[in-house]
Amino acid sequence: MTNSHEDYQQLCKLSRKGKILEGISHLLEWDQETCMPKEAVKIRAEQLQTLAGMIHKEQTGKPFANALSKLIDLKTGDIIAKGLKAEQKAALMRWRRDYLMQTSLPNAFVEQFARVTSEAHVVWDRAKKQNDFSSFLTTLEEVIDLNKKKADYYGYSDHPYDALLDIYEPEMTKKEVEKVFNPLKKTIVELLKKIQNAKQIDDSKLRVRYAPSQQLSFGHQLTAMIGYRNDKGRLDLSSHPFSSASHPTDSRITTRIIPHLPVSNIRSILHECGHAFYEMGLPVEHYGTPLGESVSLGVHESQSRWWETRIGQSKPFWKFLMPHMKKHFKGKLDGVGLETLWKGVNKVEPSMIRVEADEVTYALHVILRFELEVALIEGSLDPKDLPAAWNQKMEELLGITPKTDSEGCLQDIHWSMGAFGYFPTYALGNLYAAQFFEVFEKEHPDWESSVMKGEFDFIKQWLTDNIHIHGRRYHSGELLKKVTGKAFTAKPFEAYLTEKYSQIYKL
Amino acid sequence: MTNSHEDYQQLCKLSRKGKILEGISHLLEWDQETCMPKEAVKIRAEQLQTLAGMIHKEQTGKPFANALSKLIDLKTGDIIAKGLKAEQKAALMRWRRDYLMQTSLPNAFVEQFARVTSEAHVVWDRAKKQNDFSSFLTTLEEVIDLNKKKADYYGYSDHPYDALLDIYEPEMTKKEVEKVFNPLKKTIVELLKKIQNAKQIDDSKLRVRYAPSQQLSFGHQLTAMIGYRNDKGRLDLSSHPFSSASHPTDSRITTRIIPHLPVSNIRSILHECGHAFYEMGLPVEHYGTPLGESVSLGVHESQSRWWETRIGQSKPFWKFLMPHMKKHFKGKLDGVGLETLWKGVNKVEPSMIRVEADEVTYALHVILRFELEVALIEGSLDPKDLPAAWNQKMEELLGITPKTDSEGCLQDIHWSMGAFGYFPTYALGNLYAAQFFEVFEKEHPDWESSVMKGEFDFIKQWLTDNIHIHGRRYHSGELLKKVTGKAFTAKPFEAYLTEKYSQIYKL
Repeated sequence: MTNSHEDYQQLCKLSRKGKILEGISHLLEWDQETCMPKEAVKIRAEQLQTLAGMIHKEQTGKPFANALSKLIDLKTGDIIAKGLKAEQKAALMRWRRDYLMQTSLPNAFVEQFARVTSEAHVVWDRAKKQNDFSSFLTTLEEVIDLNKKKADYYGYSDHPYDALLDIYEPEMTKKEVEKVFNPLKKTIVELLKKIQNAKQIDDSKLRVRYAPSQQLSFGHQLTAMIGYRNDKGRLDLSSHPFSSASHPTDSRITTRIIPHLPVSNIRSILHECGHAFYEMGLPVEHYGTPLGESVSLGVHESQSRWWETRIGQSKPFWKFLMPHMKKHFKGKLDGVGLETLWKGVNKVEPSMIRVEADEVTYALHVILRFELEVALIEGSLDPKDLPAAWNQKMEELLGITPKTDSEGCLQDIHWSMGAFGYFPTYALGNLYAAQFFEVFEKEHPDWESSVMKGEFDFIKQWLTDNIHIHGRRYHSGELLKKVTGKAFTAKPFEAYLTEKYSQIYKL
Repeated sequence: MTNSHEDYQQLCKLSRKGKILEGISHLLEWDQETCMPKEAVKIRAEQLQTLAGMIHKEQTGKPFANALSKLIDLKTGDIIAKGLKAEQKAALMRWRRDYLMQTSLPNAFVEQFARVTSEAHVVWDRAKKQNDFSSFLTTLEEVIDLNKKKADYYGYSDHPYDALLDIYEPEMTKKEVEKVFNPLKKTIVELLKKIQNAKQIDDSKLRVRYAPSQQLSFGHQLTAMIGYRNDKGRLDLSSHPFSSASHPTDSRITTRIIPHLPVSNIRSILHECGHAFYEMGLPVEHYGTPLGESVSLGVHESQSRWWETRIGQSKPFWKFLMPHMKKHFKGKLDGVGLETLWKGVNKVEPSMIRVEADEVTYALHVILRFELEVALIEGSLDPKDLPAAWNQKMEELLGITPKTDSEGCLQDIHWSMGAFGYFPTYALGNLYAAQFFEVFEKEHPDWESSVMKGEFDFIKQWLTDNIHIHGRRYHSGELLKKVTGKAFTAKPFEAYLTEKYSQIYKL
């Protein structure tokens, strides 16, 4: 009989090494976007590739496989180890999942996938710049075929898209996503029509130039005010905002300054802080094991959208922030009241570009992509018909039609990277956040008056105690159930949107 | 018969992987000093340790050893490979040297050395702060013993110090260093006495407050003016200036701002640029092999001191820089002429602290440490007598006596790090630079008028063509011979110091 506790510790040790290398890889990627001299791009690619090879070796090599299979049956998933805690058993299941995924793709396929998507990125970039979808078509077809093959390698029981979605949102299925997206779509489209028939919001005071250097210093002030710790992270500039963590003690964020859109910087910072708080809140004693990892992209996004929208676009938050903004950007907001400011931040307007979308229309952009990529993967949509299908759905959902494919089906980088199944997680994040928020609100009925006073620690603490602390013990459906007592549902999000925007637009 | 060219390429490939990991390690160290959040210090140590283990494995593992021993006899050093170029044969000798050094220390010793020096650093730091040499004594004795053991492991034929010196300055010996240091010491001590009897220099204009932010922006301007390329490097702040390269396309530098010493920033930047230029000038096609590496610490230091002192403390340089400084630091240098400024930059004054020493006294600080560490290693000086020996030598060489051990024998970090044999390279750099400069001056007799006009590219080019381009093909003695036609000598440095400071002090 094996000593399960010793074996478990041995597995943790091996797993930790891979995780350390992943953290190093994240640091190099962070550096690439913030600090790296331009000419170093080639050697950086080689550094990252070398690390990737070593990580793969650590996570799929004989020592790891042997250590893992002493504790869990790799074929059946049955736990062999005796006397482990429930959370350790859950960790074994996650390790097994990762191991099987990592080893189910043949090396030749991994290399082909990397080569094709690397070229696809270049082709897509040029096609987008030249508004020439046809020049991207062959490559796109190739990427779709590779994704179909990938789904076959990973395996699925119902729909090939399930296998792809599972990469980013484990245990989630196309069917379940449709079950929440379909009514959500209907609710939002109706809400949007009402909003468009109501009196529109004037946000012109938020669309004048705010000096970039002042915006950045305000950003630093903002991180300090909401409790983002500079001894465990840092804020920098990059061309696209992102967060990057190598450990709970090193979780960095970036922002981007758009001179005529000061709110963009504020939203970005709150969004990335949400991601960073998650990483900082993971239990450090489990670092290197699944119990020290985040659940999924969707749950990660629930944390970022929580801070960006649920806190950062709430009226009490702007009551708190307004005097700081007025003081920092002298003269810019003279005579502007809270109501005007808050409504300006929450202005709804159908637009072509997902990343610039407001809180109401955002989910529609995601649903559109989800429906199209499902159709592309199952073969019911011919890639050559993508532009027309895109435009038709835009008209259907948002009532507008892109003038060019560049602002239509070529706008996002994801498909060129080979990332099919990724998009839904953006909307899932909002839905999860709303479902969590219902519980939070019940436990902290006075959260608004605290936020008005600039108190945020209790929010972070709630998120850590209820979500971060579990690491990857539960998959997203289980976590929702544990925290909210309910299965995954879009109802709280629909209710939130309807109530909030009915108030703002006096519907 | 083996195919030597294919075998050589295979060795290059294996070697490159270790080098890539070393570059990543350098990036992490750079990040630690410039960007890293404080709380990440523990995980960073683990990241670096993990990388160190992997680097060691790459450089000493079976695949590397097998590939190397196909081409060169590891025992005798005889080249087995047929048809290789001379430079490739030299590379094989360097690879063999590194391999033998890396494998000659038993693992238990390496771990003990790491543990003791890691603790020694903490003990030293506290002892320095509390001016309490006795609390450091036991640890210092332990570090010295470990260094003696290290010398035994590496092996030597004449003196144990040779084995330690060889770590940092391959093929250099204690005897050879003494041969140049002894007359140099005499020359400098005599020169210093004459200087002290002459009229002293007034540098009070350079000892007033220059705003740190302005100093930093001037630093950026300076890097641009001397041709340090921002697309292959960057300038940041750190508590101690350093340079860090992971590849010729990514060679970064830092500086430190001391408000009342504006020249310190300028000197630091020129110094670190010298190091960075060397790394940028290494032949990129040989990256990952010894032919793409620098020769030694001494030759590296020759490059930094070249830019810091030979260019950066020359009169033509200050003729060039003065108008820029006057413009940038408005009002600070009103009424100050070139002569005053240049003399201020070159003011000689014996002081306690090596890193703050002027060009004349600097070598004396180094010689003092060299003589003491030789005595400690050979056992002719009892560590408990170090403070007294230090103070006596300070009096002898510089005519001053430290009031405390903190500004005496506890001032440097090196011994606590276990780095015996390192100090001489600081002075060797000056001597090499002077020997190279004699040739440069002959080939560019008009260098001063070019520098006055702000032309620096031809200097960088000369250094690249004569020094950088060879990588590690030659050890320092061979390189001096190749470039200057002469064996290593202190004469050019002595002549330079004597002439320059006779002019400045009208001796």
